[in-house]
Amino acid sequence: MKLLRFGEPGKEKPGVLVDEKILDASSFGEDFGERFFETDGLSRLKKWLDTNQSTLPVVSGVRFGAPFTRPSKIICVGLNYSDHAKETGATLPTEPILFFKSTTALTGPNDPVVIPRKSQKTDWEVELAVVIGKKATYVSEQQALDYVAGYCLHNDYSEREFQLERNGQWVKGKSCDTFAPIGPYLATKDEIKDLDNLRLWLSVNGKKYQDGNTANLVFKVPFLVSYISQFMTLLPGDVISTGTPAGVGLGFKPPIYLKAGDVVELGIDGLGTQKQIAQNHS
Amino acid sequence: MKLLRFGEPGKEKPGVLVDEKILDASSFGEDFGERFFETDGLSRLKKWLDTNQSTLPVVSGVRFGAPFTRPSKIICVGLNYSDHAKETGATLPTEPILFFKSTTALTGPNDPVVIPRKSQKTDWEVELAVVIGKKATYVSEQQALDYVAGYCLHNDYSEREFQLERNGQWVKGKSCDTFAPIGPYLATKDEIKDLDNLRLWLSVNGKKYQDGNTANLVFKVPFLVSYISQFMTLLPGDVISTGTPAGVGLGFKPPIYLKAGDVVELGIDGLGTQKQIAQNHS
Repeated sequence: MKLLRFGEPGKEKPGVLVDEKILDASSFGEDFGERFFETDGLSRLKKWLDTNQSTLPVVSGVRFGAPFTRPSKIICVGLNYSDHAKETGATLPTEPILFFKSTTALTGPNDPVVIPRKSQKTDWEVELAVVIGKKATYVSEQQALDYVAGYCLHNDYSEREFQLERNGQWVKGKSCDTFAPIGPYLATKDEIKDLDNLRLWLSVNGKKYQDGNTANLVFKVPFLVSYISQFMTLLPGDVISTGTPAGVGLGFKPPIYLKAGDVVELGIDGLGTQKQIAQNHS
Repeated sequence: MKLLRFGEPGKEKPGVLVDEKILDASSFGEDFGERFFETDGLSRLKKWLDTNQSTLPVVSGVRFGAPFTRPSKIICVGLNYSDHAKETGATLPTEPILFFKSTTALTGPNDPVVIPRKSQKTDWEVELAVVIGKKATYVSEQQALDYVAGYCLHNDYSEREFQLERNGQWVKGKSCDTFAPIGPYLATKDEIKDLDNLRLWLSVNGKKYQDGNTANLVFKVPFLVSYISQFMTLLPGDVISTGTPAGVGLGFKPPIYLKAGDVVELGIDGLGTQKQIAQNHS
């Protein structure tokens, strides 16, 4: 299944994407959030769709919200592609670097990205995001995927001065409003045939800057879920963003950062595309 | 007012502390969380108490939960007392160091602290925590306290190996379950006469290890609220933990860390006391 949410910010309704059509699933009666996932909502939704899918209203021309409600946390993995570690001048991590992103950064996949006040260094990062399906504490790598609901496209926007030059830690440059566009949909596990071979790319104003593949992830998804669960409890609906490949603005000499009007487009195989237009904070 | 929540984990009821007595405020009909704060719950509760306080049931012998429901985030400030910065060998920060703590770490003030699996370096940190009362984005230092609901006692438990020796960032050592005992109550702003002169202390097995005063905060509460709101939106119910004074286990030569059976007690003037007994993870 491909789960999505559509409508005005704060008033999104649940839906599903079937054959490129958006079906309004409001009549299922639940939004896609922690409670939905923890009560086996994916199975219940699937069964419900078997009976009701043909009668659901088709909608079009709507805004996409994030495909789930606000999670308890967004955990990001740093420098998890060797080419990206190299471009930032960092050595390859011996174990995953973890940082958080404020959940207030969550926004729809095609909403504008707002350049924060006093920002000179707003940068992009196309990432594969993992959505947790059930509560996970000390899970093994072998069992880790049992705890995953599905996958999404995420642009892990980063203000490099806030992140790296403002006396730490990275969360400071990762948490501005609109810095976590996720979607357009959550693809359940069965939709993604080979998690280790997904192309992911990002362009700015039509020029391709990132073009990677999850084959080059230093730490793979099952390891990450297991690893993180050794340090904290993962709740249903929580997001793990797995890191970005080479080609971020910081990596160029001189660096390239976003300015108002810039058009950022990105995608991952099987997880759709996003488009954000940069605007200055009011 | 002093707001609290009592009862079994996950089934807490709201209450208030009046003249050392716990009054059951369930009949107010709301729990103390984001929606309560953002809908001016403190004013509504106060008005409601004016009429109903004398009729509320008195309860005793109950467990305290955290005094509010799970917030959207717990933001911590690092090295914010000069004596603590010195004991850890760090230089005094030129601007606040920010890191997050997973909200799954939240627990009641007298619940056991669980030493994580493979942990050798579980440490304590008595802190003054600030609870946000309304949504805050780019607020000035002068207006910052308008966005504060009140204050709590917090023990910012930290696993020093996870925090400092596991390839970053600090969140990794701050987020284990039970690592954020908060309470016993939230004191509204009016209850704290001089925020800049609160003694805070912590003892282990009856021996005092921390004995500081908020007079020595490097960055004060109004500055912190304003500062953080430049980087992310603060939501009602969010927690800012303002840092710890000298005397953590890491600062001793050799360092002192918790083992099962240790008794940790702590307090801050006007914000009550906590007591945790350390136990090993099952």
